[in-house]
Amino acid sequence: MATSDVHPLDDLIQALRRLPGVGIKSAQRMAYQLLQRDREGAQQIARALDTALEAVQHCEQCHTFTVGRLCAICQDESRDTARLCVVETPADLAAMERTGAYQGRYYVLMGRLSPLDGIGPRDLGLPELLERTAQDGVQEVILATSFTAEGEATAHAISEALKSRGVHVTRLARGVPVGSELEYVDLGTIAHALSDRR
Amino acid sequence: MATSDVHPLDDLIQALRRLPGVGIKSAQRMAYQLLQRDREGAQQIARALDTALEAVQHCEQCHTFTVGRLCAICQDESRDTARLCVVETPADLAAMERTGAYQGRYYVLMGRLSPLDGIGPRDLGLPELLERTAQDGVQEVILATSFTAEGEATAHAISEALKSRGVHVTRLARGVPVGSELEYVDLGTIAHALSDRR
Repeated sequence: MATSDVHPLDDLIQALRRLPGVGIKSAQRMAYQLLQRDREGAQQIARALDTALEAVQHCEQCHTFTVGRLCAICQDESRDTARLCVVETPADLAAMERTGAYQGRYYVLMGRLSPLDGIGPRDLGLPELLERTAQDGVQEVILATSFTAEGEATAHAISEALKSRGVHVTRLARGVPVGSELEYVDLGTIAHALSDRR
Repeated sequence: MATSDVHPLDDLIQALRRLPGVGIKSAQRMAYQLLQRDREGAQQIARALDTALEAVQHCEQCHTFTVGRLCAICQDESRDTARLCVVETPADLAAMERTGAYQGRYYVLMGRLSPLDGIGPRDLGLPELLERTAQDGVQEVILATSFTAEGEATAHAISEALKSRGVHVTRLARGVPVGSELEYVDLGTIAHALSDRR
C-alpha cells in the first residue's frame, strides 16, 4: 500500500518497518517526525548505522559486539578463564558486568533457541561453544539465559550437550527477587525458591 | 548510561532513541537486531534516510511532503480551487484522498497546536494559511483536523481566525462511525450524532 505519492518518503516508511516492533503506523509517524521536526536526528541515525555497520563486529572468542578482533573482557588477562558464563545478548552481558559479582569470561549466544523464528542450535553458535569449553581449560559453564520458555529450552539444550562431555554446568538460581514482598511474587517462583532453599 | 563498551554501538542506540516512541530498551533491541540479523535492513534504512532528507521537501502551496516544488494535487488543474481542506498530516491527506469523496485542494498543517510540546500557531503555518485563503478564491475551508482535544483546539483557532476574515468555515461531521453498533459507540459521539441529526 502506497502511503503517499512521494516515492522517497514511501521508501523511508518501508525501510523503517524493518525495525523490530515497528508497523506501518509507527513507521509513518517516525518518517514524518524525522523529516518534519528532526532532520538532524535523521542524519544522526543514518551516520550511526553506517559507522556501526562498518566498525562493529563479533568478538572472535565470545561473540559479543566489539570493534576489534577481541572484546575488552576477552583481552583482559586478569579474568578467571576457568568460568564461562553463557548469556543471550550483549545487554545481558552488560547486566552481569554491572553486578560486579562475576570475574569469569562470557559466551554470548546472540539470541536463544526459537524454532518458530527459525533460530536453531547452529545459529546460536553452539558447536563453537562446545569447542571452546573443550579447549580453554573451562571448569564451569554458568547458564545465564532468560528464565522464559525459550531461554529455559536454550539452557536445557546447552546443558545436555555439555554434560555428555563431562563439563560442570550450573544455572543462575531461581528465587524471590531482592526487595520483593512474598505476597506479590508469582507462585512458580515461590515454589522454586522453596525447593531450592538453602 | 553506556549500554556496552563498544562506542559505535552506543552511538547507534542513542541515535535510534531519537525516533518517536523509542526508549532505551527498544533502541537496544533495534540495534542488536539490525547488526546481528538484518544488516541489509540497516543499510536500507540508512540509504532511505539519506535519499528522503535530500529529495523530500514541502509543497510550496499546501505544505505536504513532495519531491518537486509543487505536489501532484496542487499541480492538478482539474481540482476544485474553491474548497480548501485543512488536515494535520500527509497521512490524513492520503486518507481523505482514498475516500474519493473530495475534489478540492489541501492545506497540511504538519502537526496540531500543542502548547506542551511548544507547537504554536506559527509552527503550523497559520499565517500562510490565512494568506492563502485570502488570495486564491477559496470559498470554503473544511477543517479536517483530528477529533481529539488538540485537534479540536487547532480547528477552533483556525476557525476563529478565518471567520473574522469572512471566510466560510466548515468542520467534518461528528457522528456514529459507519458499521458500528450503537451499543459500543462512546456516549460523547452518540450525543453529538443526536444533536447533529439530519
